[in-house]
Amino acid sequence: MLYCGICGSDMHFYKDGEPEFVNLYPFIIGHEGSGEIVAVGDRVTHVQVGDRVAIEPGIPCRVCEWCTSGRYHLCDKMVFLSAPRANGVMREYISHPADLCHKLPDTVSAMEGALIEPLAVGMSAAAKSGIGLGHSAAILGAGCVGLLTMLSLRARGVTDITVVDLFANRLDKANELGATRVINAHGSDPAAEVRSAFRDLGPDYVFETAGSMHAAKQTVPMVKRGGKVVIIGNIVGQIPVDFQLATNKEVDILTNFRYHNVHPLAIGAVASGQIDLRNIVSRVYRFEQTPQAFEDCIEHRDTMVKAMLKIALDA
Amino acid sequence: MLYCGICGSDMHFYKDGEPEFVNLYPFIIGHEGSGEIVAVGDRVTHVQVGDRVAIEPGIPCRVCEWCTSGRYHLCDKMVFLSAPRANGVMREYISHPADLCHKLPDTVSAMEGALIEPLAVGMSAAAKSGIGLGHSAAILGAGCVGLLTMLSLRARGVTDITVVDLFANRLDKANELGATRVINAHGSDPAAEVRSAFRDLGPDYVFETAGSMHAAKQTVPMVKRGGKVVIIGNIVGQIPVDFQLATNKEVDILTNFRYHNVHPLAIGAVASGQIDLRNIVSRVYRFEQTPQAFEDCIEHRDTMVKAMLKIALDA
Amino acid sequence: MLYCGICGSDMHFYKDGEPEFVNLYPFIIGHEGSGEIVAVGDRVTHVQVGDRVAIEPGIPCRVCEWCTSGRYHLCDKMVFLSAPRANGVMREYISHPADLCHKLPDTVSAMEGALIEPLAVGMSAAAKSGIGLGHSAAILGAGCVGLLTMLSLRARGVTDITVVDLFANRLDKANELGATRVINAHGSDPAAEVRSAFRDLGPDYVFETAGSMHAAKQTVPMVKRGGKVVIIGNIVGQIPVDFQLATNKEVDILTNFRYHNVHPLAIGAVASGQIDLRNIVSRVYRFEQTPQAFEDCIEHRDTMVKAMLKIALDA
Amino acid sequence: MLYCGICGSDMHFYKDGEPEFVNLYPFIIGHEGSGEIVAVGDRVTHVQVGDRVAIEPGIPCRVCEWCTSGRYHLCDKMVFLSAPRANGVMREYISHPADLCHKLPDTVSAMEGALIEPLAVGMSAAAKSGIGLGHSAAILGAGCVGLLTMLSLRARGVTDITVVDLFANRLDKANELGATRVINAHGSDPAAEVRSAFRDLGPDYVFETAGSMHAAKQTVPMVKRGGKVVIIGNIVGQIPVDFQLATNKEVDILTNFRYHNVHPLAIGAVASGQIDLRNIVSRVYRFEQTPQAFEDCIEHRDTMVKAMLKIALDA
Repeated sequence: MLYCGICGSDMHFYKDGEPEFVNLYPFIIGHEGSGEIVAVGDRVTHVQVGDRVAIEPGIPCRVCEWCTSGRYHLCDKMVFLSAPRANGVMREYISHPADLCHKLPDTVSAMEGALIEPLAVGMSAAAKSGIGLGHSAAILGAGCVGLLTMLSLRARGVTDITVVDLFANRLDKANELGATRVINAHGSDPAAEVRSAFRDLGPDYVFETAGSMHAAKQTVPMVKRGGKVVIIGNIVGQIPVDFQLATNKEVDILTNFRYHNVHPLAIGAVASGQIDLRNIVSRVYRFEQTPQAFEDCIEHRDTMVKAMLKIALDA
Repeated sequence: MLYCGICGSDMHFYKDGEPEFVNLYPFIIGHEGSGEIVAVGDRVTHVQVGDRVAIEPGIPCRVCEWCTSGRYHLCDKMVFLSAPRANGVMREYISHPADLCHKLPDTVSAMEGALIEPLAVGMSAAAKSGIGLGHSAAILGAGCVGLLTMLSLRARGVTDITVVDLFANRLDKANELGATRVINAHGSDPAAEVRSAFRDLGPDYVFETAGSMHAAKQTVPMVKRGGKVVIIGNIVGQIPVDFQLATNKEVDILTNFRYHNVHPLAIGAVASGQIDLRNIVSRVYRFEQTPQAFEDCIEHRDTMVKAMLKIALDA
Repeated sequence: MLYCGICGSDMHFYKDGEPEFVNLYPFIIGHEGSGEIVAVGDRVTHVQVGDRVAIEPGIPCRVCEWCTSGRYHLCDKMVFLSAPRANGVMREYISHPADLCHKLPDTVSAMEGALIEPLAVGMSAAAKSGIGLGHSAAILGAGCVGLLTMLSLRARGVTDITVVDLFANRLDKANELGATRVINAHGSDPAAEVRSAFRDLGPDYVFETAGSMHAAKQTVPMVKRGGKVVIIGNIVGQIPVDFQLATNKEVDILTNFRYHNVHPLAIGAVASGQIDLRNIVSRVYRFEQTPQAFEDCIEHRDTMVKAMLKIALDA
Repeated sequence: MLYCGICGSDMHFYKDGEPEFVNLYPFIIGHEGSGEIVAVGDRVTHVQVGDRVAIEPGIPCRVCEWCTSGRYHLCDKMVFLSAPRANGVMREYISHPADLCHKLPDTVSAMEGALIEPLAVGMSAAAKSGIGLGHSAAILGAGCVGLLTMLSLRARGVTDITVVDLFANRLDKANELGATRVINAHGSDPAAEVRSAFRDLGPDYVFETAGSMHAAKQTVPMVKRGGKVVIIGNIVGQIPVDFQLATNKEVDILTNFRYHNVHPLAIGAVASGQIDLRNIVSRVYRFEQTPQAFEDCIEHRDTMVKAMLKIALDA
């Protein structure tokens, strides 16, 4: 392994533990990884020793109805690295199916390679939504997922993107990375504020990446008549939805779970320069600094967009 | 006008009034109508005097972005008969745009013609969902909209349909009209009961037509991994939705508002025998019995699937 | 193996041989088969010894970009039974991947099970085209593929189907199985004749199953403005297409290659009674009569819709 | 009117005439126009006197099945400016339906406004094809339509585009405007050359804009297994197509006719800087130089990408 990113779920596992995991300790977490090939099976031809790769961490069964129909991310026999009972990628060596090791071209760094996994979430949500050239969007939440969703939309030709968050420093980051405009949700009626930025009609799409009930409740009132809401964030609890309003506007609420068939596309978008991941990384830690990295992530949750672990010394 | 059906919204207007309407009284309601052409404009060629037609009651502006892109039902200048300020169809004569008067073939009766409008709602929801041959569905609610949705699914080749309701007589009606199986939602965990009827995976699609919070809450737990929920019913209030569950199953929640481009298709389905509307009608009233019809509808809400007014004496 | 159907490609292999096959002789052909499970691997749970199954004859690699995206029929490492170098199903025993053995319910006979494969071709073409309730279609060719396509369309709710062929007995068969109308293509302008059957506009879809240049040339002139042509038949040679006409009508020409993810759906459609395969079979031969079956197929090509081999004595 | 572009069909009308037009002379041609509003109807609100607009030249009937379903470009009562019997835009004043006059923002010049119409053709073909981020394409023909198609693909996030033409100066222009690579089709097997530029698999999409039989014949052999061919060019004559090859690769051949609902999107793409039209224009002529402009277009067909007429002196 070369690099590994720290995700919100990693922080949750580190800080709170997880009842399901107790009997598994010691357990290795991490699912955002890049590595260098040190050995390959006999029949592997698309990568060879020395190649750098991005790891797609979910291993599907290949034969169920979801796998054969192309939605392998929904496979109910999925083995997902760092989810019980499969150890994750925060380690020096890993054995992984060859077709889930996606070769990085020379123009994509190993650190960018480890960011392909979270980028794939944003690109998957963007692709599933159908958004593209000429559409408009609001993104709720300017954390790592929100920013990567914004970059994914821009790569698809979307130029009218409003980012909404409660923290000024996050909104500054969104501006830096290419938001058309930003809105601080502290106001009395953020949904109305957002709508007013889109000719009082609202945006064609609203992407919920904040994972908060407050944000989720705004989505249906905010979106344009006939538009779509896409839920990406992990929202705990029961969210009250006004379905009468949703139906009168014929708004659809889509959800996105992880990704499928996205890694090659994400690597291509980074290689071609359409998506620039470098400004996503807040700080790089050496592997032995892992505990410090986690402490920093937990303490500075609002300013730390993404912390990376450099696993191999010469990565 | 020949026939007119009584819809739940008509009952609401009749019984409760509507603040917006106060200054409009006297105001004519009704939007489920069929008629016979008594005069046509000079350039009208697709219908002539004497033809019987189904009335599509929404008149769109024709030129806005929703109209030109084929989603005219979302036109925000829509004039909808029986919604303020446009009088409805419970009257003897009406002037209506020719292209919204859909000719009935000889094999479709005037009474069936008046049922084309509510059928169009079910067919629209079915079409929007993408459901078809080989998919499975649960329909929540066995009222008029639920039953018409069931007939719409069957016409698209769906053969595995479970209908859920709280009333035995409604479920009997669903059985009579072709449900694969029915489930009474009085049990302790109706979502689990429905899932168990579909190999414990749940149905590919869940259509919510009951308009109740209780039913709406069951949709996400009930539907299959990767499946779709379609909201048709008019659900008042804030419905609690578990988006974490929805996202983990990647369930999409679609909504359906009225219909667009469906009337000719609905007439064709009735004419070809794929959809049989005759057993939907509970009772036919003469036009002068209208007050009685409304009283009966309100009093016998659970057994009255659809009451019809026969407006013309010789209809 | 229980039953096996004889396909046009089998006849071609039997009669003409195939240069690629010469070094493979003896070589077993046949790809339309049903069987009874006599042994299963340790981890197989969806079928057990004694179950009857339909064989899906193409074994994909499971890991290439086509396989993981759900279009495994395009896998370029596909091993297809009866195509070099994989022996086919006209034999008594076969070892085959478990997930490609699709269990038949009690209500589907072993003979019908062997017809699932050719049915899957028709159902795949129908599904890919997007045709459904309210659309109209012309089917060129009333051979086995044409008839199975017709049954597939009807199962999806299509009720307006015109079948075109040169032979009266084939058209009679199409009528018997549910064509709305039939047209003999011997006339001077069959495309105009077909269009006139659809309000002079032409059908929404034209399915080419005849595999003849003459038929293929008619498709673009025949189809409705904005409609779709679907090529299923195996058409040898260069077909002249008037792209100016196609573009002015904005007609799309789709092709269908085999099937993917269709077998369970096809079995379900037969089990539910939506598709009745029994009248497709012209004659059943005992396994030792195989040479006679081939001779009959070749000699009576126009009247023999489908010949079946009964491989197991007690099938 | 402010500006008008000269299209290939204009040249054809100018040079060869058109039998249908004879009885219409004098007849005004031109359909690529921008203008300044000098008067508006009472109920027009989206534009006012002094606004600059791009003209969408096709006036649909608004009520037929194509119009109400959003495919108004296929309306068979379409009145298209410069097609018999509707005079075109090469004149100083024109009366046109308000909703087909699309307002230009300050950042889009009147000359760019006249290029919105041909751009809409390329954007329509791109949108219809479904191409987007991560896909690859070959474009056959580097004339005006080919180049505008290329810009349309780039605006949708497509970064791997090979342009094919017979003329070096056109290929230079394609390179200047952003082609990933160019290939001169003079070689012995251009389809193989193109395929080899895409890992020997061929591009996901092939856009035929050259309007030549030679190019059209290459499309099916060139495109990737499972890919799509899109016909935009006006190809006279019968083009030989190998449907056996198309079916074995499951290649679909789509066609594109004009555009619908594209003008606002095209204006937005130019306004946001995603599409830069300025280098498309080869030369601007004053209105009184119109005959000279036509002569130049006809004589220098291969180097003149687009000639523009400046109709108003102060445009």
